[in-house]
Amino acid sequence: MKMNELQPWSDEEFEARLRAMGDRYHIHHPFQVMMHRGQLDRKQIQGWVANRYYYQISIPIKDAAILANCPEREVRRHWVQRILDHDGYGGEDGGIEAWIRLGEAVGLTREEIVSQRLVLPGVRFAVDAYVNFARQRPWQEAAAASLTELFAPTIHKSRLDFWPQHYPWIEPEGYAYFRRRLTEAPRDVVNGLRITLGHFNTRELQERAIEILQFKLDILWTMVDAMMLAYSQVEVQGWGAYVPMAGKPGETAAS
Amino acid sequence: MKMNELQPWSDEEFEARLRAMGDRYHIHHPFQVMMHRGQLDRKQIQGWVANRYYYQISIPIKDAAILANCPEREVRRHWVQRILDHDGYGGEDGGIEAWIRLGEAVGLTREEIVSQRLVLPGVRFAVDAYVNFARQRPWQEAAAASLTELFAPTIHKSRLDFWPQHYPWIEPEGYAYFRRRLTEAPRDVVNGLRITLGHFNTRELQERAIEILQFKLDILWTMVDAMMLAYSQVEVQGWGAYVPMAGKPGETAAS
Repeated sequence: MKMNELQPWSDEEFEARLRAMGDRYHIHHPFQVMMHRGQLDRKQIQGWVANRYYYQISIPIKDAAILANCPEREVRRHWVQRILDHDGYGGEDGGIEAWIRLGEAVGLTREEIVSQRLVLPGVRFAVDAYVNFARQRPWQEAAAASLTELFAPTIHKSRLDFWPQHYPWIEPEGYAYFRRRLTEAPRDVVNGLRITLGHFNTRELQERAIEILQFKLDILWTMVDAMMLAYSQVEVQGWGAYVPMAGKPGETAAS
Repeated sequence: MKMNELQPWSDEEFEARLRAMGDRYHIHHPFQVMMHRGQLDRKQIQGWVANRYYYQISIPIKDAAILANCPEREVRRHWVQRILDHDGYGGEDGGIEAWIRLGEAVGLTREEIVSQRLVLPGVRFAVDAYVNFARQRPWQEAAAASLTELFAPTIHKSRLDFWPQHYPWIEPEGYAYFRRRLTEAPRDVVNGLRITLGHFNTRELQERAIEILQFKLDILWTMVDAMMLAYSQVEVQGWGAYVPMAGKPGETAAS
């Protein structure tokens, strides 16, 4: 029994276990569910877009850290595509620019987005944890952390399907980012899965990969926790209304 | 007017501005205020001690990063004292061991504390942000970030004064950590202030020091946000009860 437990999972089972972790994807976070149902107001949508911008601009830095730790040219030749996609290359503006356009489509100015003024500390710490993980851990581990892309097309597709009805005030040009990712994410995930199934090939390593994917899911979830606390009306039992960085209920933050 | 704005503050004014930021210290966080008033239950106190343990064990790593970036022997000769205090040295057990005893005094087992099983992702990301800041920034910036110690004696003293009445079930041996810090923190802060007043000597640098202290205050605040979300009953308008990592209201986390 013990010996059997230590057999590596087959590729099929390992992949199925990775995919099953979609249960914990931030698509299930209350703030995201409310967003999907059309229950967020303009300010909440703006807060989400402005904060998520910090994730967008950190992704190519994370990917550059992976390249910097990877001695295999063949891997780098594929992985660099992610940097080109986000930063833009040649005639293409890229995903970060598309995200800024989404910000403008929800009523933010380019300056409000790019200045990072609206980025919450909790969001910054969670995103930085991802970048630092990629800097400090072997490149295969950072590649495995990217596998939340398994779950991304569903969330992008649901935004394309439901936001125009729920949030008619969002300018339709804003949706280009989600449309891009519908084709990019599945291509990236094939590459990320190949690396993960190949490298994490003992039970112990496979369990490590599960742990890494959970770490990445925690990052995405924690980002939305911070946004929910900052942009929703929250009541804490024994305290009342919670206003972040405020000394007492009803006070606003000192700065 | 413009020129005048760029004059550096005097040492007195600079120090007063740093001290004024105590308004944003986590002593004012709802969860800490409730703790101070005796409104937390056993599980909430245990959660706080178990999570704060991750901060305790990260402090000497942060201080070692400062030493690793500092070419000045005289500075290192002083700063190393913090590592000795936390890790213990010679016949002394040190602050981390004292914190584990606090954990035992609130009813946790040593294994529950040391395994870090109860450490929440949001707490981990915030604490890691501090360690990575010390690794990646000049040592004077990391030294300035330590100045939240200006505000620490008040919070430790209030625990020593009020916890025995509010939480009579906590074994009194647990309080040794807070008592240690009453003498250590003021000594450390003299050193940290001397470095900060000496190095940040233009208006631009002084403003950078204020920004760094805010970053550190954000770390402490964000840690308590994560604990409040995980250990308090929280209601979100439009959603209902919030349970972290749960897909729907009332569900518990998948793992």
